[in-house]
Amino acid sequence: MLIRDATAEDWPAIWPFFHRIVAAGETYPYPLDLDAEQGRAWWLLAPPDRTAVAVDDAGLVVGTAKMNVNRPGNGDHVASASYMVDPDRQARGVGRALCEDSLRWARAQGFAAMEFNAVVETNIYAVKLYESLGFRITGTQPRAFRHPTEGLVGLHCMHVDL
Amino acid sequence: MLIRDATAEDWPAIWPFFHRIVAAGETYPYPLDLDAEQGRAWWLLAPPDRTAVAVDDAGLVVGTAKMNVNRPGNGDHVASASYMVDPDRQARGVGRALCEDSLRWARAQGFAAMEFNAVVETNIYAVKLYESLGFRITGTQPRAFRHPTEGLVGLHCMHVDL
Repeated sequence: MLIRDATAEDWPAIWPFFHRIVAAGETYPYPLDLDAEQGRAWWLLAPPDRTAVAVDDAGLVVGTAKMNVNRPGNGDHVASASYMVDPDRQARGVGRALCEDSLRWARAQGFAAMEFNAVVETNIYAVKLYESLGFRITGTQPRAFRHPTEGLVGLHCMHVDL
Repeated sequence: MLIRDATAEDWPAIWPFFHRIVAAGETYPYPLDLDAEQGRAWWLLAPPDRTAVAVDDAGLVVGTAKMNVNRPGNGDHVASASYMVDPDRQARGVGRALCEDSLRWARAQGFAAMEFNAVVETNIYAVKLYESLGFRITGTQPRAFRHPTEGLVGLHCMHVDL
């Protein structure tokens, strides 16, 4: 598996699983009805921010990450990132590889920390992955996310020093 | 003191103290060099979000608040808000009146809660005000804000059910 910078040409390969994940509404507080153009504007970031893709040995895009400054001004020493893995390609290390890549990027850019602002607490796989990479939960906004089957669940803030 | 919806005509009265607060860089993770046009686009929100002003008995704008949905999609049942009070008019109840007004607005709009994503922990006056109105700190992102005199300080997440 290779992690590389995403290009505009990758979007047709990203969109099907990106859309499936967003429309399911289980893991991100994103607009559920995001269309392909809005999704591309939302996800494909320009420098100094970055979007990456994970490509398998057959050349297929199996996951993607966006990484960016978390806040402007006197908060701009902290990065953030988001990840989407093709649900048909989960549990093969794609999410971990993308998260590790984003941490390398953030260190290389000189960020002091990476923070996630809204990790859905029922997304146990993601929470455990982030914790295994050094993140800790710094707090939870209670009932801040309407999970389609679990009801009102919390959104974790997570943090790791770089 | 009156709280009313802000209009584009209020911006020249808001900008001087807004700019002073933003440029001081002590209380908000906003771009320090925000100019008047960028500031207006940043602060004056269109429905369904809202910007309000506090006007004193002499008709002067002494404070302002913006209030908005905090997250899209399955997070859109939670509101957020931000407040700016003219530093020359502090400690006269302006911030409290603006915060109470935004809570009334959020309840009337049907939001289930209000959350703040980034309250600078050294902004003790604001933290105490929010706590007096029912907010509690749900977590703190450590060292997430470079205070110009205090150094690296935390950003609180705060929450109140409506």
